[in-house]
Amino acid sequence: MYKSHTCGELTAAHIGKEVTLAGWVQKTRDKGFMVWVDLRDRYGVTQLIFDEERTPKEMVLKAKELGREFVIQITGKVIERESKNNQMPTGEIEILVTHLKVLNASLTPPFTIEDKTDGGDDLRMKYRYLDIRRNPVRENLIFRHKVSMEVRKYLSDKGFVDVETPYLIKSTPEGARDFVVPSRMNEGQFYALPQSPQTFKQLLMVGGMDKYFQIVKCFRDEDLRADRQPEFTQIDCEMAFVEQEDILETFEGLTRHLLKEIKGVTIDKFPRMTYDEAMQRYGNDKPDIRFGMEFGELNDVAQHKDFQVFNQAELVVGIAVPGGSIYTRKEIDALIDWVKRPQVGALGMVYVKYNDDGSYKSSVDKFYNESDFEKWTEKTGAKPGDLICVLSGEKNKVRAQLSALRMELANRLGLRKSNDFAPLWVIDFPLLEWDEETQRYHAMHHPFTSPKPGQMELLKTQPGEVKANAYDLVLNGNEIGGGSIRIHDRKVQEQMFNYLGFTPEEAQAQFGFLMEAFQYGAPPHGGIAFGLDRLVAILGGQETIRDFIAFPKNNSGRDVMIDAPAIIDEDQLKELHLKLDL
Amino acid sequence: MYKSHTCGELTAAHIGKEVTLAGWVQKTRDKGFMVWVDLRDRYGVTQLIFDEERTPKEMVLKAKELGREFVIQITGKVIERESKNNQMPTGEIEILVTHLKVLNASLTPPFTIEDKTDGGDDLRMKYRYLDIRRNPVRENLIFRHKVSMEVRKYLSDKGFVDVETPYLIKSTPEGARDFVVPSRMNEGQFYALPQSPQTFKQLLMVGGMDKYFQIVKCFRDEDLRADRQPEFTQIDCEMAFVEQEDILETFEGLTRHLLKEIKGVTIDKFPRMTYDEAMQRYGNDKPDIRFGMEFGELNDVAQHKDFQVFNQAELVVGIAVPGGSIYTRKEIDALIDWVKRPQVGALGMVYVKYNDDGSYKSSVDKFYNESDFEKWTEKTGAKPGDLICVLSGEKNKVRAQLSALRMELANRLGLRKSNDFAPLWVIDFPLLEWDEETQRYHAMHHPFTSPKPGQMELLKTQPGEVKANAYDLVLNGNEIGGGSIRIHDRKVQEQMFNYLGFTPEEAQAQFGFLMEAFQYGAPPHGGIAFGLDRLVAILGGQETIRDFIAFPKNNSGRDVMIDAPAIIDEDQLKELHLKLDL
Repeated sequence: MYKSHTCGELTAAHIGKEVTLAGWVQKTRDKGFMVWVDLRDRYGVTQLIFDEERTPKEMVLKAKELGREFVIQITGKVIERESKNNQMPTGEIEILVTHLKVLNASLTPPFTIEDKTDGGDDLRMKYRYLDIRRNPVRENLIFRHKVSMEVRKYLSDKGFVDVETPYLIKSTPEGARDFVVPSRMNEGQFYALPQSPQTFKQLLMVGGMDKYFQIVKCFRDEDLRADRQPEFTQIDCEMAFVEQEDILETFEGLTRHLLKEIKGVTIDKFPRMTYDEAMQRYGNDKPDIRFGMEFGELNDVAQHKDFQVFNQAELVVGIAVPGGSIYTRKEIDALIDWVKRPQVGALGMVYVKYNDDGSYKSSVDKFYNESDFEKWTEKTGAKPGDLICVLSGEKNKVRAQLSALRMELANRLGLRKSNDFAPLWVIDFPLLEWDEETQRYHAMHHPFTSPKPGQMELLKTQPGEVKANAYDLVLNGNEIGGGSIRIHDRKVQEQMFNYLGFTPEEAQAQFGFLMEAFQYGAPPHGGIAFGLDRLVAILGGQETIRDFIAFPKNNSGRDVMIDAPAIIDEDQLKELHLKLDL
Repeated sequence: MYKSHTCGELTAAHIGKEVTLAGWVQKTRDKGFMVWVDLRDRYGVTQLIFDEERTPKEMVLKAKELGREFVIQITGKVIERESKNNQMPTGEIEILVTHLKVLNASLTPPFTIEDKTDGGDDLRMKYRYLDIRRNPVRENLIFRHKVSMEVRKYLSDKGFVDVETPYLIKSTPEGARDFVVPSRMNEGQFYALPQSPQTFKQLLMVGGMDKYFQIVKCFRDEDLRADRQPEFTQIDCEMAFVEQEDILETFEGLTRHLLKEIKGVTIDKFPRMTYDEAMQRYGNDKPDIRFGMEFGELNDVAQHKDFQVFNQAELVVGIAVPGGSIYTRKEIDALIDWVKRPQVGALGMVYVKYNDDGSYKSSVDKFYNESDFEKWTEKTGAKPGDLICVLSGEKNKVRAQLSALRMELANRLGLRKSNDFAPLWVIDFPLLEWDEETQRYHAMHHPFTSPKPGQMELLKTQPGEVKANAYDLVLNGNEIGGGSIRIHDRKVQEQMFNYLGFTPEEAQAQFGFLMEAFQYGAPPHGGIAFGLDRLVAILGGQETIRDFIAFPKNNSGRDVMIDAPAIIDEDQLKELHLKLDL
């Protein structure tokens, strides 16, 4: 061992002791006859002192030459500091150095190794190993470790078995794109990397392993939107002989445990909301309920006047922005521009200032009077001093637009407090969703989700109305987990594939093994999967997952540190029976 | 929840209680007026009883129709059994059923769901989900879960941080073949799946995360020999500011903990042996030291007589087979045939029977007398009643041959007891090994392994003699872990790549990021990786890893259950900028 102690543990209690430390030079202060060095390791920083009176001359000279991030080993005596620093655990002491050894030199790092660094994102990613030396990044990774350990302990104590499922599986065209892996031994054939271990965990249920979990990497070859990674980590879980209620209770328990153990936050019972209600009240299936600004539907009170924009709209809906009545004309115009950006896509926005004195001022004063606005106020819950923002149009679109505005305003108003935690179960998801592009219904969750009992027949007549025993766990406006009760009957699964547009041959080729398994005594089962990256980020009070991943990829799916992906040898391609087709 | 209790927990203490159980029909016994059903779940088997006197007629009829592996739910009263069964935890009671519901029917399974099944390997793999219902397979998977939980707990308690490293990395031609993953977004470029997280864990050390571990899947596209898997699991560990001794102590601690917690076996201090000594005494760098049969080198006492075969040999070496003097001529001929098989490759075998009465009988009586044989006896440690088997030839080959014979005989003689555990550190591995095929030296461990201090110069003159701070942990004749102290200096790493035949450009293209990292204050570091599949198998008293993997692949790298790998769509290939080249 290169050290007797870490750089984070020495206190006044150690004064007089001889110690050996090793770590990185954080900084040096050279006062001529005295040199101080801050020595850093994973555990903290300890101050070293070299002075001409008490330290051999050549060692003082050596200390003067130490650069930032040099790796050194020192031996010395713990002494009391003259000017103590209460901000750091080791602030009472310093080490009077008797031996100094440079273990490795360092070039000047391309950015400072400080909590607030001068390095931009690209530079930090290229030198991620230096970025990890910084406290915030290191602490995020250790925090992630703590969360996954707690998850494993909790689930294992509840009888769940961690079973590793394979990474080299079979490509299925359903859902997102697979990453594929050419097989050298099986010419012209490919494995796929799992988008999730879905079918394997269901087979484990068929296999009688009635409580399964795994913390597992999953892969999706998507065009990367902001803050998505081609490889991501799931807490994947499945249970047999359960109903939806059992799963909600079990994983509410897990989440409650994490909030308590990791954040010291006690939340008794998580609220539940149906998908339909979430859409109506928040325009969003993952509402942030840490703050109000709930939707007020205004069709009843705003239509059938002379304002044609509203009269023609499927939905007229508003929110009350706390304290917004003082916004200037310029500020409101900026908000209108914001909702008209292509990313949001509203055609315009109507506003009503509900002034402190109870009067109204709006952009539609021509069409509505005070008594109309009183009703709007009631529907949106606006209070004197608020601003009512109203959007209108096709229901689904306008809800999404107003939800975007609600979140934007909440961010601006500081209503999304990172140390408040508001979990919410959203239940009764639709089984199917309409896809404009392909002009057909797709499984909203995945094709293994069971419709609610008795709704199978409805599939033929009103497929969009069929609800599933599917649920999401939402935390602070982010979906952190989602799951469903699965189909466990071969005939139902066949029908489902049929509704989803699979030919019997396609269904057989891709999922024949699963349907066959259902014939040999498949128990009722269901499960859930949590996105670990996001869960950790949100528990950590942040929303960017990249800061909680040791070696993330950029938006082009590249690892800029190791420079991957990269070209491979002709020989390698040949062995895989492949040619490039550029 | 479909049940109030599991099928493994009801005892006499529950008599009189009403319970609900759910599980699989293990078997039914129909006595006409009475039907017994054995109901099975993950936790055990409980006997159900239906009888015409106490059960509604239609339920008795329904019970008669239950087939093997039907999934049922029952409610009933726990009653005392007439004929108790002490062999099972629930043997004192049975359930008088009042409600029976068939949750799912089952076809007759293709093999019996019993501890000793009638299913062959291929069938069991195709229906692995049924195989997992069998006690031995399920218990192996739960055992694996226990081992990995203990590993994580132990390491986490010691301050190790579980850090997830990426799966989509860069292909490097060193070592075994990589599996590659074409990138759609980066035309003509490929990711590779990691053979191990080696460079990433070293970068974590550079990043100051001084104790790292991860239980992680690794991938090698090798032609599969018996009991190898293309994807396998490693317990991957690395430490900074350590010397070899620190690593040996830390991971001896982990292994000791596992032996104690999992097997109840206490082993104080693990023996150590250099690689050279292991090769000399056992002809093998992973010797099974649970039994003797150590090598006796006979050059001094068997050469320079008239037996030319020995005189020309680089090495003459023998072992004493306990009790082997009674082998018949036929049995010995079979042994000689065994060592002459191409898999072993010996040209012949000399034997000496050391009879109980102290006399000798050998296949080389023409050339050697009793006084010669006395010396052979001494060198091999043979006792009266033993058989001395002697092989000769080129040193490395003959050692491998005799080691194979030693292991084979130990298996036949029952000397490899699965509940004896004999760990052993093999240390001081050579840095390089000569590769006949490419006619050059390769890194024995990997190119990041540090030569022993002061031996860098020897590389130029006697590369085969250079030793490394590299070590393996051997358990019962299997390598369960291996590691080394790494290079942490850019210049040394460059020289090493040069010795290994990399051009500077190749080294830069493949490992430039690592060498660059070494310039920014890389600490001394080293680590180890355990093969979890094998570790679990050996702790479980077996040697076949496939029995401890939920969904293993066969020797062609195929998953016969899901039928992967498989062909993929033309469109998918096109998107990946690839063409098949068959």
